[in-house]
Amino acid sequence: MNIKKVLNHIGIMMILEAILMIIPFIVSLIYNESVGKIFIYCIIVLLIIGFFLFKFFVSDNKFYSAEGFVTVSLGWIVLSLFGALPFYFSREIPNFIDALFETVSGFTTTGATILSNPSNLSKCINFWRCLTHFVGGMGVLVLMLAIIPTKSENMQIMKAESPGPQVGKLVSKVSHTARTLYYIYIFLTALAIISYIISGMPIYDSICIGFGTAGTGGFVVTSNGCAAYSELSQTLIAIFMLLFGVNFNIYFLILIGKIKDAFFSEELRVYFIIVIISVTVIVLNIFNLYGNFNKTFHTAFFHVSSIITTTGFAIGDFSKWPEFSQTILLFLMICGGCAGSTAGGIKVSRIILSYKAATNELYTQLHPDSVKIIKFEDKPIQKDTIRTVLCYVVIYVIFILAGIALISLENYDFATTVSSVFETFNNIGQGLSKVGPTGNFSIFNSFSKLIFIVLMLTGRLEIFPIIMLFSKKTWKRSI
Amino acid sequence: MNIKKVLNHIGIMMILEAILMIIPFIVSLIYNESVGKIFIYCIIVLLIIGFFLFKFFVSDNKFYSAEGFVTVSLGWIVLSLFGALPFYFSREIPNFIDALFETVSGFTTTGATILSNPSNLSKCINFWRCLTHFVGGMGVLVLMLAIIPTKSENMQIMKAESPGPQVGKLVSKVSHTARTLYYIYIFLTALAIISYIISGMPIYDSICIGFGTAGTGGFVVTSNGCAAYSELSQTLIAIFMLLFGVNFNIYFLILIGKIKDAFFSEELRVYFIIVIISVTVIVLNIFNLYGNFNKTFHTAFFHVSSIITTTGFAIGDFSKWPEFSQTILLFLMICGGCAGSTAGGIKVSRIILSYKAATNELYTQLHPDSVKIIKFEDKPIQKDTIRTVLCYVVIYVIFILAGIALISLENYDFATTVSSVFETFNNIGQGLSKVGPTGNFSIFNSFSKLIFIVLMLTGRLEIFPIIMLFSKKTWKRSI
Repeated sequence: MNIKKVLNHIGIMMILEAILMIIPFIVSLIYNESVGKIFIYCIIVLLIIGFFLFKFFVSDNKFYSAEGFVTVSLGWIVLSLFGALPFYFSREIPNFIDALFETVSGFTTTGATILSNPSNLSKCINFWRCLTHFVGGMGVLVLMLAIIPTKSENMQIMKAESPGPQVGKLVSKVSHTARTLYYIYIFLTALAIISYIISGMPIYDSICIGFGTAGTGGFVVTSNGCAAYSELSQTLIAIFMLLFGVNFNIYFLILIGKIKDAFFSEELRVYFIIVIISVTVIVLNIFNLYGNFNKTFHTAFFHVSSIITTTGFAIGDFSKWPEFSQTILLFLMICGGCAGSTAGGIKVSRIILSYKAATNELYTQLHPDSVKIIKFEDKPIQKDTIRTVLCYVVIYVIFILAGIALISLENYDFATTVSSVFETFNNIGQGLSKVGPTGNFSIFNSFSKLIFIVLMLTGRLEIFPIIMLFSKKTWKRSI
Repeated sequence: MNIKKVLNHIGIMMILEAILMIIPFIVSLIYNESVGKIFIYCIIVLLIIGFFLFKFFVSDNKFYSAEGFVTVSLGWIVLSLFGALPFYFSREIPNFIDALFETVSGFTTTGATILSNPSNLSKCINFWRCLTHFVGGMGVLVLMLAIIPTKSENMQIMKAESPGPQVGKLVSKVSHTARTLYYIYIFLTALAIISYIISGMPIYDSICIGFGTAGTGGFVVTSNGCAAYSELSQTLIAIFMLLFGVNFNIYFLILIGKIKDAFFSEELRVYFIIVIISVTVIVLNIFNLYGNFNKTFHTAFFHVSSIITTTGFAIGDFSKWPEFSQTILLFLMICGGCAGSTAGGIKVSRIILSYKAATNELYTQLHPDSVKIIKFEDKPIQKDTIRTVLCYVVIYVIFILAGIALISLENYDFATTVSSVFETFNNIGQGLSKVGPTGNFSIFNSFSKLIFIVLMLTGRLEIFPIIMLFSKKTWKRSI
């Protein structure tokens, strides 16, 4: 294990985090909030430790997968620990576990909260809370790769941090790919924020909700959530959530003029088909709750978009919907958005691949001697990829079951236990029953909150890096 | 598709069912129940149609996997339809869907019931109900293979009907293997029944409960379930349930003196480890409900044994247990017994293989160039088997989710919906909440009952045969 290089990278990440904290400090100046000085202290601490790590741990040794996994998982843990300090030191979230929960929920773009009313937070603290969504959405390390000139080995980092079964380099150099991704990301986020402002949302809210939409996070700034905004604003939010659930490669293809290729993407098609079917089915199921088509469609569309992209914004209490519609939402939670987007969940492409592998298996059972090649996006898929995807689904199920077992110790109802595990592991932030739109995570004890923290991190980093961090085999190689 | 040969086999199965119906008719004579004449009518109908199919559809063409799958799935459906007639014509279960539900639940050894009090049935009808467990446990077609002299092609049938990822021939000829299995099965069942009688259970109850234990079914004969019997009887039931959840190959190995091989079976070890851990954890969790260790241990052991073997007997209302213990039971429901036993569920061997494939995958992620071979029972496992197992798990999840979506239309609570799907698909017969030990399936509408019927059949036949029956590809080859 090249621990020196790992620590060096973590140093850079801490310096980056310090730079990011300047933004909420500026917000505190605008709103004249004295609590903003907290950020100065945090920035100083981050810079000192960050520079120390960056300067004193230098290594030119090779960087393997193991190092990539460890850098990513350890990096996210460090960032979360320091990111929690402003909440804790400002005493706005006086319990450190709670502050850590909120930060991890932010960085992992989960959006689950322990706050019953987020508008009680000061503006600058809440801004930092929402900013974590934006940073976590595309990934802190991808940001690092975008900024500093790097070597090709950094593909290992990109692979470990980016969501989805396959990570392709868009352009030949990793740093260019990272930069292109961030350009698209920033452009779309700006577009969302400007649209919100034009639709009549307050500027502060527009920016914060924009961050939540971009990272498919789900933190809100009023006690009313997104119900506080006009129907036009809500529709815009719903549309932008859907857009951020799309694989960013699609936007890249559009950018370089390959529009036909972009729209013929298999994953994109399936993603939209799932959305259309879910909205239709839910509209039929909840129609008599709302009575009028426009209202029903609006509500159904907003929540389907919010849940499949694992954002978790709500404009009504869907835990009052009939159980069938709630079940559909639970399925969307499991599914998640496209690979290579900021959304969580298993990802549409993995669902497609698992389904194809399964139907192919049925064919093989009938014709044991024939071989059929599985295709995805019109390309034959390697057996290794299929196996990795199937194993991912199995490990996913194992984590979900373990989470359910540990959280069931709290003795809440079944819907609360199951959906709280799903909403943290899939980085959604909205569940059913006690963790539904009207509830929050303050009902859980510290042990459960720690479990949720682990689930959120493991879910965001797609399981493997976190397991690697705790595996003896990863650390076996000498420094 | 060699439809002639399929129909020929179904003819034989119907004749076999007619012969089996003689047994409850004898019971009706013993108890002097006039309702028993129903069985005579049913026997006549079965014999006429059975002989017709057997005589008029003869073919010497080859028998492929497709035919094996169709024979098994169609055969089970036909057997269930005719097996439901005694309930229906006797008007003891006046609704045909209900009667079919009860019969399918019997043959598939699920043990879910729509009856609130099974002791309201006449003795002979209830005997037929329990007999279906015994017949369904080892498989009707395995019985057929055991009785009639057959060709080697019948391995296809055996493969389609027997539970588990791999079916091995114990001895060189299929018919000998089937016969050996049935000898062991009958011997163990007789042992169970005799033990129950000695422990003080009424003879009629001992036989019926013996059938339920053998098939890991779960139908009972009193309104009180197994709570009606002494603690000694209950302990014996718990032990025999566990024994019937063991791979029958183990008993074969013991039979031929390879005792060491038998006890070194990896699946057997994991099966018992799961039982021991579950009992321990549940005892710790429910101790303060019962207060004394003996009672707590007895209750925990009985229910763990009942649920992991997917039998579904109950001696208390475990839906009053803390949620953690209920979650453990839900996991045991998913797990199920060993492959090649009469138990349902995913099966311990598939769990082991999935787990090994998943951990192996993590290793491959760290060392992309190295190849590690997965071993099971000390033998290297072919990649094809691993893929089949992983796909099986994926298809299993798809069925569970589809079942939950359809049953959620009934708008019951989440625990009822989820556990009713698990308990039918895994052939358990005991769920939580409204389908827990104090509830039954009469609360559902006919649509849901039909869904449950499909789930029970699909679960018992391990998914593939039922899908094949409805696949166009299966029927494509000309007659």
